[in-house]
Amino acid sequence: MAAPILTLTTDFGLADHYVGVMKGVILDICPRARIIDLSHEVPAYDISQGSYIIESSWRYFPRDTVHVVVIDPGVGSSRRPILIEAGGQYFVGPDNGVLAPIYACAKCKVRVISNKKYYRRPVSRTFHGRDIFAPVAAHLAAGVPPGRVGTTVKNYVRTAPQQPIQSGKRKWSGSVMRIDRFGNLITNFEAGAFPDLERFTLTAGQVKISRLARSYAECKPGELLVIAGSSGHLEISMNQGSAAQKLKIEPGAPLELLLT
Amino acid sequence: MAAPILTLTTDFGLADHYVGVMKGVILDICPRARIIDLSHEVPAYDISQGSYIIESSWRYFPRDTVHVVVIDPGVGSSRRPILIEAGGQYFVGPDNGVLAPIYACAKCKVRVISNKKYYRRPVSRTFHGRDIFAPVAAHLAAGVPPGRVGTTVKNYVRTAPQQPIQSGKRKWSGSVMRIDRFGNLITNFEAGAFPDLERFTLTAGQVKISRLARSYAECKPGELLVIAGSSGHLEISMNQGSAAQKLKIEPGAPLELLLT
Amino acid sequence: MAAPILTLTTDFGLADHYVGVMKGVILDICPRARIIDLSHEVPAYDISQGSYIIESSWRYFPRDTVHVVVIDPGVGSSRRPILIEAGGQYFVGPDNGVLAPIYACAKCKVRVISNKKYYRRPVSRTFHGRDIFAPVAAHLAAGVPPGRVGTTVKNYVRTAPQQPIQSGKRKWSGSVMRIDRFGNLITNFEAGAFPDLERFTLTAGQVKISRLARSYAECKPGELLVIAGSSGHLEISMNQGSAAQKLKIEPGAPLELLLT
Repeated sequence: MAAPILTLTTDFGLADHYVGVMKGVILDICPRARIIDLSHEVPAYDISQGSYIIESSWRYFPRDTVHVVVIDPGVGSSRRPILIEAGGQYFVGPDNGVLAPIYACAKCKVRVISNKKYYRRPVSRTFHGRDIFAPVAAHLAAGVPPGRVGTTVKNYVRTAPQQPIQSGKRKWSGSVMRIDRFGNLITNFEAGAFPDLERFTLTAGQVKISRLARSYAECKPGELLVIAGSSGHLEISMNQGSAAQKLKIEPGAPLELLLT
Repeated sequence: MAAPILTLTTDFGLADHYVGVMKGVILDICPRARIIDLSHEVPAYDISQGSYIIESSWRYFPRDTVHVVVIDPGVGSSRRPILIEAGGQYFVGPDNGVLAPIYACAKCKVRVISNKKYYRRPVSRTFHGRDIFAPVAAHLAAGVPPGRVGTTVKNYVRTAPQQPIQSGKRKWSGSVMRIDRFGNLITNFEAGAFPDLERFTLTAGQVKISRLARSYAECKPGELLVIAGSSGHLEISMNQGSAAQKLKIEPGAPLELLLT
Repeated sequence: MAAPILTLTTDFGLADHYVGVMKGVILDICPRARIIDLSHEVPAYDISQGSYIIESSWRYFPRDTVHVVVIDPGVGSSRRPILIEAGGQYFVGPDNGVLAPIYACAKCKVRVISNKKYYRRPVSRTFHGRDIFAPVAAHLAAGVPPGRVGTTVKNYVRTAPQQPIQSGKRKWSGSVMRIDRFGNLITNFEAGAFPDLERFTLTAGQVKISRLARSYAECKPGELLVIAGSSGHLEISMNQGSAAQKLKIEPGAPLELLLT
């Protein structure tokens, strides 16, 4: 039988001991668990960037994977810990919208993690990653049925995803969802929504881009281009350079797509 | 039987191949080993910050875990490699004080790692993480009894921990042990030593803080607060902001706690 | 039977989800795989630094390890994905020279990865780490024979390694291959090629160094020294300080070694 897989997504960084301690807690409960880091470099308290990471990653993992997502500015307050069953996988984290992208799945079931039996005791005020989310995830990975963790609820936090808005006959307003290490600007325009993209202008800040590339290498180094990125969204990129640095724009920046 | 667990704590960073190579050496000797990173971002040569990481982490790991701690400015000199048995776990590293927090455990046994049979050969002058600590830890994880590694000694380096000093009837002098990614200042005041903390002034640099919070979220964003942190120490924090950035102080900075 | 081991070397960084997604893809195909990160902090598009990481690491891993190396500025272009069998291990990556150090091995066999059966579908234009290299490596780790992946070729990209050149009777011109986290300058002078190094001058920028040390600790803090480093090359170092910061030189900088 394959070992259970857990993934971790946090804003804890890798310099502190927090991530390592969560792994110790998990292995103590579920010694066979395989633990995979998605990212721990989510900017502190940035729920929307945390959402981006889990949304972009979970589909690549096998059935029954347990995903732990801890971007949790409300730790210790009344915000609830939740467990989501969706797409044959499990998601554990705070009910603050960070897991909202998962709610788009069909047959999504959300539970409040109310059964304190699966908490680590005592529960600290500031580190529920260690005391609630990691141990609950480890118990799930070890075979505890989701129903034991808590009852289903309907009133969870649904943050609306930033979808593009059609603002003219052939015009859409969108935004930059993410900037990656290479300086690619990942937009919220789904490539599949514009299958015949040929003649267009994508405006980002002061700059207009009209070049759709099929690979980075087909452009000159330093040239700005639009490409269907690996996450299925249009990306603004530069061959062997950073589009973000060139354009000097940040996640959330508005974009305008005009089909010409 | 559960797979043996090893943890790694170093000042090697993650950009170089050093950590990966240690893992290769470990898996070559003990293919079943599960290797967990605690931190590799300990500032270069910073024994006290390395101590902080292992002290804050090891208790969360299962019995028989082998912890490898390599902050080793004296590599290649006469400083000795040691193995500590304590609390049902194992600790491998240089005898330079980095493992000193472990000596507080009852029934702590310290051995010099003298049996070169468990070294990787040849032993380099500069990378005992690869040539001594990783292979010895892997052999322990694979079942070699600690007694084979070397004989017990008493004259190991005991660095006194930075404990607060009572400097008045209701006054204590302490210090900042650690600043984490969120800018929390983790102090050396144990929360348990001040169970009735209500009216107090904690002075850090030019700033006095009198607010004890039960959660970050109970304070306004940007407000400085004192909270019982997840490691059992008082921490100076800020809701959704960096106390360290606000106070502009460094690890080691003096603090004064006055009960009023 | 020991679990198969894969290593990953990329320029993806750890902030994005790219590395985590590659691991999901691998575990989905080969659930028993043990995945070890060598480095993901290779500077973006820097083939020569990527080569350095894999060259410095692979020998420490057990037989049959599968190494995945993705520094891939030409992703989506006509550059080919290749599989190398060498030294009892496997290497998967783009045919752009990043794997060139492996070609120094005896009985090295290079195949073009042409069998699309082992690709993940659909193949994106920008992320062959996820869609080609990770899945092919996982299939190999799971037992697919290399011959199924593609046929052998001879016309792969051989980037000549930067070897020192003898420029006088007792004089060699070399260069800095790598600067590590400690600011050690790792040179391309193999320590074994200068076994009797005693009286010498190593010139780096404006500075001449004549001190060969057997350990960092034998020098004063802040003193520049030459030492036989852990990778078998001469390194310019400083006890408890950064030689790179002191010398202000970059990877690729020229060096001159004069035996006196």
